[in-house]
Amino acid sequence: MAGNSFGQLFKLTTFGESHGKALGGVIDGCPAGIVLDLDKIQEELNRRKPGQSAIVTQRKEPDTVEIYSGIFEGKTTGTPIGFAIHNTNQKSKDYSHIKDSYRPSHADYVYDIKYGFRDYRGGGRSSARETASRVVAGAIAKQFLSDIKINAFVSQVGAMKLDKPYQDLDFSKIESNAVRCPDTEMAQKMEDYIKSIKKEGDTIGGVITCVIQNVPIGLGEPVFDKLHARLGEAMLSINAVKGFEYGSGFAGVAMKGSEHNDAFNTDGTTKTNRSGGIQGGISNGMDIYFSVAFKPVATVLQSYETINKEGEKVTTQGKGRHDPCVVPRAVPIVEAMAALVLADYSLLARTNKI
Amino acid sequence: MAGNSFGQLFKLTTFGESHGKALGGVIDGCPAGIVLDLDKIQEELNRRKPGQSAIVTQRKEPDTVEIYSGIFEGKTTGTPIGFAIHNTNQKSKDYSHIKDSYRPSHADYVYDIKYGFRDYRGGGRSSARETASRVVAGAIAKQFLSDIKINAFVSQVGAMKLDKPYQDLDFSKIESNAVRCPDTEMAQKMEDYIKSIKKEGDTIGGVITCVIQNVPIGLGEPVFDKLHARLGEAMLSINAVKGFEYGSGFAGVAMKGSEHNDAFNTDGTTKTNRSGGIQGGISNGMDIYFSVAFKPVATVLQSYETINKEGEKVTTQGKGRHDPCVVPRAVPIVEAMAALVLADYSLLARTNKI
Amino acid sequence: MAGNSFGQLFKLTTFGESHGKALGGVIDGCPAGIVLDLDKIQEELNRRKPGQSAIVTQRKEPDTVEIYSGIFEGKTTGTPIGFAIHNTNQKSKDYSHIKDSYRPSHADYVYDIKYGFRDYRGGGRSSARETASRVVAGAIAKQFLSDIKINAFVSQVGAMKLDKPYQDLDFSKIESNAVRCPDTEMAQKMEDYIKSIKKEGDTIGGVITCVIQNVPIGLGEPVFDKLHARLGEAMLSINAVKGFEYGSGFAGVAMKGSEHNDAFNTDGTTKTNRSGGIQGGISNGMDIYFSVAFKPVATVLQSYETINKEGEKVTTQGKGRHDPCVVPRAVPIVEAMAALVLADYSLLARTNKI
Amino acid sequence: MAGNSFGQLFKLTTFGESHGKALGGVIDGCPAGIVLDLDKIQEELNRRKPGQSAIVTQRKEPDTVEIYSGIFEGKTTGTPIGFAIHNTNQKSKDYSHIKDSYRPSHADYVYDIKYGFRDYRGGGRSSARETASRVVAGAIAKQFLSDIKINAFVSQVGAMKLDKPYQDLDFSKIESNAVRCPDTEMAQKMEDYIKSIKKEGDTIGGVITCVIQNVPIGLGEPVFDKLHARLGEAMLSINAVKGFEYGSGFAGVAMKGSEHNDAFNTDGTTKTNRSGGIQGGISNGMDIYFSVAFKPVATVLQSYETINKEGEKVTTQGKGRHDPCVVPRAVPIVEAMAALVLADYSLLARTNKI
Repeated sequence: MAGNSFGQLFKLTTFGESHGKALGGVIDGCPAGIVLDLDKIQEELNRRKPGQSAIVTQRKEPDTVEIYSGIFEGKTTGTPIGFAIHNTNQKSKDYSHIKDSYRPSHADYVYDIKYGFRDYRGGGRSSARETASRVVAGAIAKQFLSDIKINAFVSQVGAMKLDKPYQDLDFSKIESNAVRCPDTEMAQKMEDYIKSIKKEGDTIGGVITCVIQNVPIGLGEPVFDKLHARLGEAMLSINAVKGFEYGSGFAGVAMKGSEHNDAFNTDGTTKTNRSGGIQGGISNGMDIYFSVAFKPVATVLQSYETINKEGEKVTTQGKGRHDPCVVPRAVPIVEAMAALVLADYSLLARTNKI
Repeated sequence: MAGNSFGQLFKLTTFGESHGKALGGVIDGCPAGIVLDLDKIQEELNRRKPGQSAIVTQRKEPDTVEIYSGIFEGKTTGTPIGFAIHNTNQKSKDYSHIKDSYRPSHADYVYDIKYGFRDYRGGGRSSARETASRVVAGAIAKQFLSDIKINAFVSQVGAMKLDKPYQDLDFSKIESNAVRCPDTEMAQKMEDYIKSIKKEGDTIGGVITCVIQNVPIGLGEPVFDKLHARLGEAMLSINAVKGFEYGSGFAGVAMKGSEHNDAFNTDGTTKTNRSGGIQGGISNGMDIYFSVAFKPVATVLQSYETINKEGEKVTTQGKGRHDPCVVPRAVPIVEAMAALVLADYSLLARTNKI
Repeated sequence: MAGNSFGQLFKLTTFGESHGKALGGVIDGCPAGIVLDLDKIQEELNRRKPGQSAIVTQRKEPDTVEIYSGIFEGKTTGTPIGFAIHNTNQKSKDYSHIKDSYRPSHADYVYDIKYGFRDYRGGGRSSARETASRVVAGAIAKQFLSDIKINAFVSQVGAMKLDKPYQDLDFSKIESNAVRCPDTEMAQKMEDYIKSIKKEGDTIGGVITCVIQNVPIGLGEPVFDKLHARLGEAMLSINAVKGFEYGSGFAGVAMKGSEHNDAFNTDGTTKTNRSGGIQGGISNGMDIYFSVAFKPVATVLQSYETINKEGEKVTTQGKGRHDPCVVPRAVPIVEAMAALVLADYSLLARTNKI
Repeated sequence: MAGNSFGQLFKLTTFGESHGKALGGVIDGCPAGIVLDLDKIQEELNRRKPGQSAIVTQRKEPDTVEIYSGIFEGKTTGTPIGFAIHNTNQKSKDYSHIKDSYRPSHADYVYDIKYGFRDYRGGGRSSARETASRVVAGAIAKQFLSDIKINAFVSQVGAMKLDKPYQDLDFSKIESNAVRCPDTEMAQKMEDYIKSIKKEGDTIGGVITCVIQNVPIGLGEPVFDKLHARLGEAMLSINAVKGFEYGSGFAGVAMKGSEHNDAFNTDGTTKTNRSGGIQGGISNGMDIYFSVAFKPVATVLQSYETINKEGEKVTTQGKGRHDPCVVPRAVPIVEAMAALVLADYSLLARTNKI
């Protein structure tokens, strides 16, 4: 209710602040009998962790997950899976210079008004560090989904846009570069660009595209809980996200119905897929694909003017360890959230018919 | 759970099919003591109802709402508000030609797989007719919110885009034309265009922009239930929606952090508003604005090829009473959903602090 | 959230006041494909309706249910089932004498404090008339459950207690008398007693026992949502209920573990059933049985002293049409709530394992 | 959903098995600004912990709680409070003798059917060890409630019943004896009796009574979420509970309405309190009191016959470290659950009126 849970039947609740003792969560509703590969969970965390390349934040965190419950003799038991990731490299002192001022386009100010206090240590709960817990849960959801394949990748950095249909991309290349763009040539350009932005002490936005394959027909609930509505909510809940579109998206607006409609093949598949794998909020068995827009990170390592708690102007020098561009590390987060949505709706779909 | 409820504290549950006896819903959690103007509820319904102009569907429905409970001596009582809108102009026969075939880019096929049956009468529950119930609830939510002003309008039809900042628009003009575009010149062009599309028996997409003003600071829950995540879910749950963006949206991706950040004024307001009135998922008191992309309506009044239940190819002639462009009638729906989100989060915000 | 919904997957939301236009509700999550016998729904309502015998309230209500949605060609569609029961025999004037005073042991006073107003017309939402909607939903749940048999009956009126194990009772006799006690001899005594109480203008309490047979093993969720915890909540939510016990109940307290334990047969059934068909919150396949205590109705047709809104003493004469003993009409309500719990947990149980 | 969460606005989710690495939970929705006394949390845990006296289980667990998040500079922050209690004294070998057999009146058998596996180590998730997490959360809820006083105590052990009205008891004596009965004479008898039962290798049931004072008027939601319905659910969710009654309870059944009604004083209080502080599901400002029946613990240290997984008869000797009577250690659990309910409804009550 207070916003720290996601999902209804496969449900994740997370806790933890950027500079607290530990982050973690509880997965409730994970079915019994899944043979869990714990290494795969850690691998997903490693894809998200800081310090993995030159174009991400240099905070050094091993991000090792400890699982406390819900697994017995290698399998899930159907009971809640509690887990924690202990913080080890908090440098709260890095934040003492902003203790009394509000950083622009951060949540500092609204937290103070809403809660009557502010955890100035790296943004506290508003930090994207929280998403580590989502990646753990998503890695478990992926193992539950097994047949469903979820691939996210960076399709845009700043104005640099990968203008190829996803069908022409080789997803096995996603992890071959620091940007996580499957087109290695474009990846190199993006990486160079991010490095130049970083040198300026500045940041830049980006887009992640996600493709979900082998989805059974029938996932999603009509009306308010349409599959894409939940996917959209999931993506928009990730830090720095400003937009979501699926299938033909915003570009589809300019099309006529006669052009936009996906004609059926006799087996129920469609010749085109402008629908993005979802009709009326329910998966139709075609690939689901969507894009997620991330704004540039608000923390710039430059001097800027802002206000303090007393409403006085102050000039501050941005410092600390930050991502110049959030999308490379956000790829596993997008996948994790997609996996959580699909796991939840997979369970829900079991209840549709007598 | 099965997707027919929206909201947590101010909660709407809807029921009803396009050609059933009645549509309606229950609002649970509406606080006691609101002096309700019932005429305003009907006015909102009238904005959505079919047959209101030459560019919308010609189905003739009075869409008169009956309120069964929850109001006593002119005020809300805090008990659930049950209501119904009786269908009077169902022409289910209009649909007999598609009884055995699946319309492309409609929910026919996935309903049949998911539920083992299909209500061919106008799409049954998957019809946008369901949104009438949302408009009723939204009209009540608006009266609860009172000070908060919600204005949605059509900002794009096909490729025709209103390229002015919303601050330069006169919202009082929105209702002055059939398209619901506040720029009357552009509105005329859009209307002409929709008429020409209609003449072709075709349909076209569009974009609705929504601006919410006078929002108190502090609405929205961190992490999963960010204010914009819920707004996005709300909008994506409206029929035919393919995308959502708020603040700088997809365009913000190409900006640098130093350009994108909204510098503070000493009173806590910001000089720019690329954030779209929301920081870290929490309203910051600036205007909230977002855009919603609608695909072209799938029902075209042309001949098309599709498949039947046996998986055989069939040729069908589209007929019935349909909207050539959904956005004019979707304006009050967007407002209604925004109002429901804000009402819900307004109540939730009462619980943040001791 | 505001307390007008019950269930998670098979979910009922109700609306309506004692003297409003209509009562009703929405069932969300009822699976598609149930062949619904609408007459059976009305029959259950008839078991609850006023005026059915000399020992219940003489308000004359046909309690005819109208179903608005969710059923197509005789079967449930998986979409929400909306329904209403129009009030026809409101005599709000009967209540004008208590408009300004608070009836003892009624909800008048707390409603006024909580909501800042009071619907004096028959208790408004706090009236047990709301339970008519539960009976409709329960009747649908029963048809979904099909194999599971739910039988409730009156086991105590005042101090008169039916002291036979339920196995010795003939459930087919429950409907043979106005009290709904399967022991016809005891039923006659109870009926005579209720009549004598009525003559005094007084009321009396009672106990309903419910037996659920043919329950599959595995319904119920461990920890907070134990099957008996939800059953208890369901029963305690019925007007006038003061207590709930299942299996050995309060009497089991005085037993030793060695006496109380239910030894297994080799087929997994147990030789005794002090557990009441539930182990660790999960059904074990044995009969579930529980008892529900109802207090005497608070409205007595006698003169009594109370206070008015100004906190002044006033003397009032009880009048109106009231039940001298609530248990005969509460039997179908207990069954309905049990059916709703079981339907909900039946769906939930589909999600336990991969 | 899967039953490991409790509450709606002040919400606890727990995880952990009897012999796993750690137990713990997340409290979501705790308001910001509560000055938390961490010692008080540990004190409540100490009241529940094993090994505290001769009449409870001799498992040696320090039950030290680690809080991971949600507290900053001594106050709650409004963000989720994650916590863990590491298990240190698991003796899973104690259970190897029952690895392949089902203990009577335990959850072993139903878990195996429901989940397709069984955690034989001390009952796994079905163990009452889970309630340690509830006590942590309850201790925090108590500090939020501050003015509301919750006192639970043992009122019956076996057939030995404390037959005094709670008004005549001195709650400050509850912690003065191992049984937690405020009547020290009766406490001694109960203690002696439990010791004799223990010597037999047997167990015995008991009753806990709980009194809640200084409750504001207006807590509780009408209809399904009545305050006593939620309290009942909360209590019935505690391991070994078989019954719940509040106010006049089962005994009130035999009273006439004219005797049972609580007449008002002019200040809105009532002369008697058979209602148990709740009218129509809403607190009326009088003391709330209720009783909870606990069955005898199923594990007896005697030889017994049961079945194994193959459905064969086996004879087993009960062993391990177990409570001969569960009620002394359950007192803080009852209080904790009551505190959680009241905290939840206190927040909800903020949303009733405009």
